Amino acid sequence: MVFWNLEKLDLEEFRPGIMSKAEIGSNLIMACMEIGPGKEDTGHSHAFDQCGIVLEGQIEMVIGEERRVLHPKEAYFIRSGVRHGWKTFRDPVKLVDISLKQPV
Amino acid sequence: MVFWNLEKLDLEEFRPGIMSKAEIGSNLIMACMEIGPGKEDTGHSHAFDQCGIVLEGQIEMVIGEERRVLHPKEAYFIRSGVRHGWKTFRDPVKLVDISLKQPV
Repeated sequence: MVFWNLEKLDLEEFRPGIMSKAEIGSNLIMACMEIGPGKEDTGHSHAFDQCGIVLEGQIEMVIGEERRVLHPKEAYFIRSGVRHGWKTFRDPVKLVDISLKQPV
Repeated sequence: MVFWNLEKLDLEEFRPGIMSKAEIGSNLIMACMEIGPGKEDTGHSHAFDQCGIVLEGQIEMVIGEERRVLHPKEAYFIRSGVRHGWKTFRDPVKLVDISLKQPV
């Protein structure tokens, strides 16, 4: 499918508390993710860029030295190699995340 | 800058009738674009994936054999090599578009 209605998309469990649907092309992975309340990634890094847009809810993101609570219609860009993490609060968060597809 | 508020972002003219701001990393280009009314790209293709999310307005997109008018909170994924084009109507369209950064 090349078009997604992000409000009606059927997601599947990706990890506990994280629902997802991904489109995987030759170079890019686009994923719609719904992250439950009170979830956290304390931080990691990888050798490729990653970016995304928040659609619903609030998520705290830390990218390198910058920390910010993102709301709907806010976007992030994580440069290759920069440590980043995130945390959700009381409400679920829906976002679309895009990253480079890794060579197999 | 790693965070964008897409409602307050300052855009610059990219082409006549198209305002844009882009973040360019090692692998990805994320661009917020505002396309004026009555603009059109009749179609082209390229050897890398491209995807995006509509934030405001309506845009008709043709990707391969599929044609659809996209509204806010709808997303598209254009696979490498697939011919695609778009058309705007009476209102401007704001979207975020992500594509692979081309090797120089």
